[in-house]
Amino acid sequence: MSIVVMKFGGTSVADSEMIRSAARRAVQARQRGHKVVAVVSAMGNTTDRLIDLAGQITRRPSRREMDQLLSTGEQVTIALMAMAIEDMGVPSVSFTAGQIRIITDDVHGQAKIRRINAHSIVRELDAGRIVIVAGFQGVTETGEVTTLGRGGSNLTLVAVAAAIDAKFCENYTDVDGVYTADPRLVPGARKIDRITYDEMMELSSQGASVLHNRAVGFAKKHNVPIHVRSSLHNRRGTMIVSETEEMERIVVNAVALKKHLAGISLKNVPDRPGMAATVFHALAAAKIVVDDIIQTETTPKLATISFTVDLSALPAVRKLCRKMCRQIKGVTAEFEKDLAKVSVVGLGMRVHTGVAERMFAALASGGINIRDITTSEIKISCIIKRAEGAKALRLVHDAFELGRKKKPAAKTTKKKKTAKKKKTKKKTAAKKK
Amino acid sequence: MSIVVMKFGGTSVADSEMIRSAARRAVQARQRGHKVVAVVSAMGNTTDRLIDLAGQITRRPSRREMDQLLSTGEQVTIALMAMAIEDMGVPSVSFTAGQIRIITDDVHGQAKIRRINAHSIVRELDAGRIVIVAGFQGVTETGEVTTLGRGGSNLTLVAVAAAIDAKFCENYTDVDGVYTADPRLVPGARKIDRITYDEMMELSSQGASVLHNRAVGFAKKHNVPIHVRSSLHNRRGTMIVSETEEMERIVVNAVALKKHLAGISLKNVPDRPGMAATVFHALAAAKIVVDDIIQTETTPKLATISFTVDLSALPAVRKLCRKMCRQIKGVTAEFEKDLAKVSVVGLGMRVHTGVAERMFAALASGGINIRDITTSEIKISCIIKRAEGAKALRLVHDAFELGRKKKPAAKTTKKKKTAKKKKTKKKTAAKKK
Repeated sequence: MSIVVMKFGGTSVADSEMIRSAARRAVQARQRGHKVVAVVSAMGNTTDRLIDLAGQITRRPSRREMDQLLSTGEQVTIALMAMAIEDMGVPSVSFTAGQIRIITDDVHGQAKIRRINAHSIVRELDAGRIVIVAGFQGVTETGEVTTLGRGGSNLTLVAVAAAIDAKFCENYTDVDGVYTADPRLVPGARKIDRITYDEMMELSSQGASVLHNRAVGFAKKHNVPIHVRSSLHNRRGTMIVSETEEMERIVVNAVALKKHLAGISLKNVPDRPGMAATVFHALAAAKIVVDDIIQTETTPKLATISFTVDLSALPAVRKLCRKMCRQIKGVTAEFEKDLAKVSVVGLGMRVHTGVAERMFAALASGGINIRDITTSEIKISCIIKRAEGAKALRLVHDAFELGRKKKPAAKTTKKKKTAKKKKTKKKTAAKKK
Repeated sequence: MSIVVMKFGGTSVADSEMIRSAARRAVQARQRGHKVVAVVSAMGNTTDRLIDLAGQITRRPSRREMDQLLSTGEQVTIALMAMAIEDMGVPSVSFTAGQIRIITDDVHGQAKIRRINAHSIVRELDAGRIVIVAGFQGVTETGEVTTLGRGGSNLTLVAVAAAIDAKFCENYTDVDGVYTADPRLVPGARKIDRITYDEMMELSSQGASVLHNRAVGFAKKHNVPIHVRSSLHNRRGTMIVSETEEMERIVVNAVALKKHLAGISLKNVPDRPGMAATVFHALAAAKIVVDDIIQTETTPKLATISFTVDLSALPAVRKLCRKMCRQIKGVTAEFEKDLAKVSVVGLGMRVHTGVAERMFAALASGGINIRDITTSEIKISCIIKRAEGAKALRLVHDAFELGRKKKPAAKTTKKKKTAKKKKTKKKTAAKKK
């Protein structure tokens, strides 16, 4: 009997009817001969309701007490889920993180899982029970309750699957799977059957919010395939897997749009060692997450440091940069608050060429100006004006024929491979400087 | 520095404003130089809401999962309470039952506390923190979550106070204290300053719902005085204490009314050993709680067994008794569904006489017929018609002058002591048969 670990997110257990529906899925998997573990999140808006309650009490709740508070959300769901399964005639048992010792470090609100006591889970599975585990939470060695931060339940899913050697895990959610582009912006977007961990992580970083990167990275490390699928029907979703040679045949797997970016350019920065470190240390100290960084030398002694941040961080960044300008002689700062970023992601970029050209041509065909370009091994991103974001996404999606049922794949580009590979490599290197 | 353990029931922490108000009380006690522990219940109707949720999922939830579910209610409150205290500038820390090892047996829904690890509480108190403990819940040796049943948070209050050697504990609630009678029925009822554990337990059994008997019994065993007081103001409430000789001076401390009783009479029961056992074994097996039992011999060979139960149990009892009538030849059953019970309670009854007479006279003055009489060392109860319940309560309350500011006490009755003591004793014995 193989073990399946399934996870139901907050929208999939939003009310008692949905909990019963999730329970039915777990029962069906067991009837198909699997041993079943289900990881569940807090019901619907429970977490928001608890945060709101805390907000009525204090403006600065301690992280420890916040975790003590928030962890109740999942505990409610595990009990109800186990009840629902038993109501269907199948024995079940629920566990909080404390009860199966999901041991984490003591960073409240953002804890890291260290290990899980698989013993209790395996014992209950062997006794024929469906095991329900509270997602999102952990405990420290001394029994303090912690939470895992954003995407925490997915981390629990993967960690539990890894701990008990499950063949794969299933993430039931309110989307059908991973799409070639956000279907709300690109009506012709197509569901992807298989995508690698690395591609998924790049996609998430570039704005696709299907699965949090920490969970995908964890799954990659432990080589646990994740099936992302809808809790509303039985159709297959998207498998997130480790790469195989065959997967490199697909040049571009998906496109993504990050809509709310702000750009900052620090000009006339003295071009000497440590300057960039000074700038980004100040940003890090203020807990500002920097999206992309592009540094260029303008004169032999002066450089321009450009970077993007989420729009919401702009007021804080502005304050910080102005302070910097006063401290470092001659430096000036410019701010743009109307930026977006369109990206293409695909494992095949490593071996195929012409991707960048095709992307730039697509944008040019729509008269869209590219402000900056950044790349990684399996991703190319262009920073553009926000007003042109959705249009850019559609153009690029079309250019790589992602909406078609049959994958366009390597054929057209492979021909150009030898000719253009060198050029692309050089470009990438330049951009990474 | 002495330790105070205070408890805030559900109505005293019903919303964020009341939680802040409860927190303020804890902070004030600390400012007066005490080390403070606060035991809290689930907010307002949280428990009902959770029970309702479970009801939407299944009609027969397992007790284990029910405990897993319900215990979240108190966990929410402890976190919010600790946040509120820290918001007032005083360090605080919250603990679930699992975190301070409130170890119970494994009877889910009705668990008994075995021991508490006082160490963590004492350590945090010594570090200057106000310690918040989740009431109503416990854990088994193996970490299963349990709940303590009705009045559970008060059990936690007393158990924590006993474990850390607190001088006394405070039960903050929505009433001012223990009254000489239910003020809703007897407008002239007076708050009692001090009452013994035994009197309090008799009062609760006879219908006063201030404090559950399990908690009072636990407090008596560990000799922890309980101060029952209002969370809405600072006036003193009622101290529940162990008896002193001086307390026997008060003959009757309070009167109580149990409103919804049904009476059952089994007639022509063969008067041979084991018959009563057969009857009440059947009732116990059906989990029916019998209120009072009165057995009288009618002929040398036949007896009448009368007993009362809560009105809600009547349908089940009726079914059971009819079955018994078919099984034991000649036995007939009669049912009355309109009964009530008025009781007087006082430690002084042990040494003073004339109490029964005074009570009977009071009822007679109102033309109230007494159906049955039962007594204990410190209580006399009369079973009457429900329609006359409130009137009976007022008459008896007046007869013992309980509403007056000055206690009437022993003076009037003591004179009759020698004359009537014997008679009363005989009567009591007869009734107990």
